[in-house]
Amino acid sequence: MRILKAEELPALADGAGILGTGGGTHPYLELVLAQKLYREGAQVSLMDASELADDDLVAVVSFMGAPLVSKERLPEPESVCEAVRGMEAYIGQKFRAVMSIEIGGENAFLPVLVGAMMNLPMVDADAMGRAFPEAQMTSFAIDGLDLFPFSLADIRANRMIITRSASAKWTERIGRVVVVELGSIAGTCKAPRTGAEIKKHAILGSVSRALTLGNAVRRARGEHRDPIDAIIDTESGVLLFRGKVDDAARRTTGGFVRGRASIAGLGADTGKQMTIDFQNEFSAAFIDGKLSACVPDLICVLDAENGEALGTETIRYGQRVAVLALPAAPIMVSPKGLPLVGPRAFGFDFDYQPFSGKAA
Amino acid sequence: MRILKAEELPALADGAGILGTGGGTHPYLELVLAQKLYREGAQVSLMDASELADDDLVAVVSFMGAPLVSKERLPEPESVCEAVRGMEAYIGQKFRAVMSIEIGGENAFLPVLVGAMMNLPMVDADAMGRAFPEAQMTSFAIDGLDLFPFSLADIRANRMIITRSASAKWTERIGRVVVVELGSIAGTCKAPRTGAEIKKHAILGSVSRALTLGNAVRRARGEHRDPIDAIIDTESGVLLFRGKVDDAARRTTGGFVRGRASIAGLGADTGKQMTIDFQNEFSAAFIDGKLSACVPDLICVLDAENGEALGTETIRYGQRVAVLALPAAPIMVSPKGLPLVGPRAFGFDFDYQPFSGKAA
Repeated sequence: MRILKAEELPALADGAGILGTGGGTHPYLELVLAQKLYREGAQVSLMDASELADDDLVAVVSFMGAPLVSKERLPEPESVCEAVRGMEAYIGQKFRAVMSIEIGGENAFLPVLVGAMMNLPMVDADAMGRAFPEAQMTSFAIDGLDLFPFSLADIRANRMIITRSASAKWTERIGRVVVVELGSIAGTCKAPRTGAEIKKHAILGSVSRALTLGNAVRRARGEHRDPIDAIIDTESGVLLFRGKVDDAARRTTGGFVRGRASIAGLGADTGKQMTIDFQNEFSAAFIDGKLSACVPDLICVLDAENGEALGTETIRYGQRVAVLALPAAPIMVSPKGLPLVGPRAFGFDFDYQPFSGKAA
Repeated sequence: MRILKAEELPALADGAGILGTGGGTHPYLELVLAQKLYREGAQVSLMDASELADDDLVAVVSFMGAPLVSKERLPEPESVCEAVRGMEAYIGQKFRAVMSIEIGGENAFLPVLVGAMMNLPMVDADAMGRAFPEAQMTSFAIDGLDLFPFSLADIRANRMIITRSASAKWTERIGRVVVVELGSIAGTCKAPRTGAEIKKHAILGSVSRALTLGNAVRRARGEHRDPIDAIIDTESGVLLFRGKVDDAARRTTGGFVRGRASIAGLGADTGKQMTIDFQNEFSAAFIDGKLSACVPDLICVLDAENGEALGTETIRYGQRVAVLALPAAPIMVSPKGLPLVGPRAFGFDFDYQPFSGKAA
């Protein structure tokens, strides 16, 4: 266990933005709020999963909703704290620590905010190794753990607990319609996880991974090296495409943002066209109609100059971008993982295919 | 406290059908199921609210959803029992008795079914004095009681508790979207009510009222008298219109059936046209465009021959009908009641108006 220092927060934000693969993008507002809490005296400890006792309980938190809303409304982690308190009241036990359901995007910062507000350490782990749009797209669900009880709170006084669900997908479906009714954003505390479960079923080291990635990008910027290269080196990724965004169509529907971005090639890719489909996160990239990379691998659209992550909500005409693919966590591409997080789980009619150059 | 006898069940069904004012109509399937349970040895006690101790807890139950679905699927009171058990587990207390949120339609039979399955007496009371489409349209909400916790269960394994809500309307909104997602029907157990609350805030004697009404209709049929007259006499109602249904438009949307029925006058009403708007229940009746009766008063469309209630889901071209208005419970037309159950609560742009002939 060590203190997460105030100086590390910007790197966490940069790393989480990239690992968000378009879902919510760079958690700038959350970073500012965390820095404010730190200035007011808060300090959050980062603990390794191995430091958890097997019967410790960990609060797994997230904002659930459409990324656009988290850009329109200032982040209100109090609703997440309320979801955590609601869960503690329901199970009659206190949490030992907090972690995020996903290391990508805004949710990566929630353990910092909730940890500061509730005086809990954050665990160096997540359950996605990136960001995914749906609550059941986690290593916990892939390993067959129940996703209930599931606690949900909004910024009004609405509080709900799914005490049992017929399947992981039903937890998502019920939670999602409620979130939409509440204005497409709510704080959630997922099923409490024991220390033993975290050690066995979480994706470990996620916060450190985001910090390493963010630090690499920031160092490259400082040294006037190409941050894109730094990301590829740090994450064993590949550069899929360079170009200029020439179209982006999106609609916020059913609690998600869905749409497609189109990118005209530049440099070595001149004359080629990339399209990327998204559901909160980028889910499948095609070059001239041929699949280039797809979920669960990470498709990252970055500002070509400074390596900052662009989001499905903010990508727009004229941006110069580099599109990278980073490998998913092994459990996500495993035979038991793909039915939950592979392309068919996103409605595509094709099977998972590793991005080319992955072995390189 | 007395045993509700098997011979009384058909009268309860007839009376509840009429008091349903179109929402779900005659609870035939529930009657058949109750008779089956009785044949298998079940017996349900009917208790007066005055027999409740002030700190007894009463389970207030209902099916929540669109009436059409309750016609397509056989009734599954097990989901309501599950909602009741879920509530008992959440509050850590056992219920002393069960009552329906509404004496109209299928839900009037739920206390018989749940009572038989869980061995609980049913209270001679409800919270609407009729049927209403939304969960907050109750005497409890009108009197400012909280509508949480609110327990919900479906026929799969999905279970949910709204532990707190920002308002009565929010309980309805959250519950409704979940019910729609679950297939537009779910079993619910509303906020537990103490005996003291029932005695002070419920509408008392509702089951007896339905039995009296049903018995009057059945007696009139047996004696070849006009059952319509029997209903009017028993309930201090008025005959609004007689005619033939010449159009009915409905759609099941947002967890409700909404639409409009049109009736061409016959007999004394020849040449006139009645239209009736509905949201699960009939909510406003117009004769030649002029308001004739509206919520919260009961608008009952009955088979002109046998007095059987016709529902918003089943009313159809060619039916010969008598349209009656019956007076609402006093709390419903009170200044604090009308904002929740008057015409504006149903989206109409006019104020409540008593039906003419009411004083007669």
